[in-house]
Amino acid sequence: MRVLGIDPGTVSCGYGIVDYEKSRFRSVAFGLLECSPHVPLPQRLVTLFGSLENVIQEYRPQDAAIEEAFAGKSIQSSMRISEVRGMVIVCAGKAGLSLAQYPPATIKKAVVGVGSAHKSQVQHMVQILLGLPDLPRPEDASDALAVAICHCHRSHLGAL
Amino acid sequence: MRVLGIDPGTVSCGYGIVDYEKSRFRSVAFGLLECSPHVPLPQRLVTLFGSLENVIQEYRPQDAAIEEAFAGKSIQSSMRISEVRGMVIVCAGKAGLSLAQYPPATIKKAVVGVGSAHKSQVQHMVQILLGLPDLPRPEDASDALAVAICHCHRSHLGAL
Repeated sequence: MRVLGIDPGTVSCGYGIVDYEKSRFRSVAFGLLECSPHVPLPQRLVTLFGSLENVIQEYRPQDAAIEEAFAGKSIQSSMRISEVRGMVIVCAGKAGLSLAQYPPATIKKAVVGVGSAHKSQVQHMVQILLGLPDLPRPEDASDALAVAICHCHRSHLGAL
Repeated sequence: MRVLGIDPGTVSCGYGIVDYEKSRFRSVAFGLLECSPHVPLPQRLVTLFGSLENVIQEYRPQDAAIEEAFAGKSIQSSMRISEVRGMVIVCAGKAGLSLAQYPPATIKKAVVGVGSAHKSQVQHMVQILLGLPDLPRPEDASDALAVAICHCHRSHLGAL
């Protein structure tokens, strides 16, 4: 199976494409969808939507996965991130992808084995699981790979 | 000028199309974009996106307007509404519409003259300003007409 993980942000979104076959993970692509921080959020959303459409068209994943919404320290920034999530949800849905959502602790547990793992541990385990020569960077792309790995894992468990 | 006002909700979105010429408002269309409350929010967002695209295609507004995001009583429901707002922002942006955002008090002031006006007063004044035979219903559609009226008013003042 091929899974697209997305880590939404208001200026850039991490993405990661992971193949999972015979209990092995393979990194297909990862990186950042970026836009200028100097344009208003509505225009940024449209730009990010177009870039995400391109990634889906290029790599043709079967499923998409994203971290569940959670309330951050600032309600204003939580609402801004939710607007980006809305963009991601529509983009995945229009492309016919099912979109799974996982709580942060579930993702960490799937990748590191501990729900309270530190971000650097997640990044390290993403590197190990995908057999990457270096730490996956930037961190947003690593987080996107992590949610994709979590979904592969969960789907596999569900299929057993 | 022709303006599309949108009142986003997680099950249905009010919409209202208003023409403004020579200081007169005219209601072109208003109603609800609806979807089943029994399907998950991601699918609902995709359905609402398609319906909103159809409204834009049918009525060809020049601008769109929406209430600014504000933190409601529940952070969870504020985040859900923000996901819908993200869908609206992308839909308007992809159609080439500029999207104006106004605080609730600014909309009430533009329609009723008082920023603290009650919802029923807004509905009443929307009826009067648009010369409608009855109160515009449902309330979400009336709210969408109100934000469209606010935008016409503000754009006209800006142009003076």
